[in-house]
Amino acid sequence: MDIDYSGIKVIGFDADDTLWVNETYFREAEEKFADLLEHYETKNKVDQELFRMEMKNLELYGYGIKGFVLSMIESALELSNNNINQTTITKILNLGKEMISRPVELLDGVVEVLGKLEKQYRLIVLTKGDLLDQERKLEKSGLSKYFHHVEVLSDKQPENYQNLLDHLEIPVNEFLMIGNSLKSDVLPIVELGAQAIHVPFHTTWAHEEVPVEEQTNNHLTVGKLSDVLKYLN
Amino acid sequence: MDIDYSGIKVIGFDADDTLWVNETYFREAEEKFADLLEHYETKNKVDQELFRMEMKNLELYGYGIKGFVLSMIESALELSNNNINQTTITKILNLGKEMISRPVELLDGVVEVLGKLEKQYRLIVLTKGDLLDQERKLEKSGLSKYFHHVEVLSDKQPENYQNLLDHLEIPVNEFLMIGNSLKSDVLPIVELGAQAIHVPFHTTWAHEEVPVEEQTNNHLTVGKLSDVLKYLN
Repeated sequence: MDIDYSGIKVIGFDADDTLWVNETYFREAEEKFADLLEHYETKNKVDQELFRMEMKNLELYGYGIKGFVLSMIESALELSNNNINQTTITKILNLGKEMISRPVELLDGVVEVLGKLEKQYRLIVLTKGDLLDQERKLEKSGLSKYFHHVEVLSDKQPENYQNLLDHLEIPVNEFLMIGNSLKSDVLPIVELGAQAIHVPFHTTWAHEEVPVEEQTNNHLTVGKLSDVLKYLN
Repeated sequence: MDIDYSGIKVIGFDADDTLWVNETYFREAEEKFADLLEHYETKNKVDQELFRMEMKNLELYGYGIKGFVLSMIESALELSNNNINQTTITKILNLGKEMISRPVELLDGVVEVLGKLEKQYRLIVLTKGDLLDQERKLEKSGLSKYFHHVEVLSDKQPENYQNLLDHLEIPVNEFLMIGNSLKSDVLPIVELGAQAIHVPFHTTWAHEEVPVEEQTNNHLTVGKLSDVLKYLN
């Protein structure tokens, strides 16, 4: 495994669950959603059906809170056989509004890491999801000043990354991506021939899980974000 | 009024209702939504309340179909005093899915205009709304090949445009914007000192309307898109 980062000039950071907490809020919303449906199904069944609905709708809705809320409403109607109380629909809408309005909670070490790395590297944010939500979170985070460029992608397939590197004129051998998702932040980057550091978050959305046989050794995994400084300073 | 475009090197095109039909589909969805609520309120009242709800939610949801659907559901609950039938909620969800899945209908003259202008100018798309929806529409439209760059903005305030011109290193005096919305495509551009051509579409969303006293003379208005060729060739 090549962990020689001497040629790296640009570092891309994922945002959700790399710079700030995100997945935890979805898990909390799912808990509340299951509570709202407890008269109809077990928590396990509700979780399973909501995930199935999200996957069914992913191509149409994409990533982000608004699509998640629409899938919760559709699941609630389906799981209750259209018996769900109308006020429960309002509660689901409010769950989404609360998620959108939450303050941004930075992960440990983020400010220290960005403050050190910005002196030697050009830093960019590469996140997927809802454009407005991500812009708002970056603004609330106070982290904008560390980044030369912020790009919200509709997805993180190799071609999304390649288009962006082309647009920003970044050679692949000068690029390093840091993120919590093997599927979105590491594997597509390794496929392009660039480098990636995986910083796992304690919670991973099932959609972002990668079967062991598809994992790769061509990247570094660290236990916490500040560990990257051991390799980049 | 300065309509000397000899210094222009880059032309930005709005997309919705400039390159392809969009507002019409929202109007059709609103018609169907009013039909679903006809037992509770008049069409006029439903339209008015839905618009009020969209404005209330705009800061949270931003532009795009998903936020529109969430606002329709919230309005339906409110206007029916929580008596709306659960199956009607499903019908509202389906209205949104149909909107997202619609084929793209190009406006008259678009292919001719882009085909001619791309020989002399660098063309870019500057649209606001949902990132995934806009990328999908551009792909369905077959127009990607004409554009050097596509940018989906969360809003079209002067600072959104300025950031983008800075990022793409486009001097304001070399930039011309073409679009259907006075509020989003013309006024902020004129404010920056760049040029704009207004191509009105037959339908304008109330949120995009501009009071007469805030309108500006510092732009050209044409009756249809292909008229721009008279000034740019």
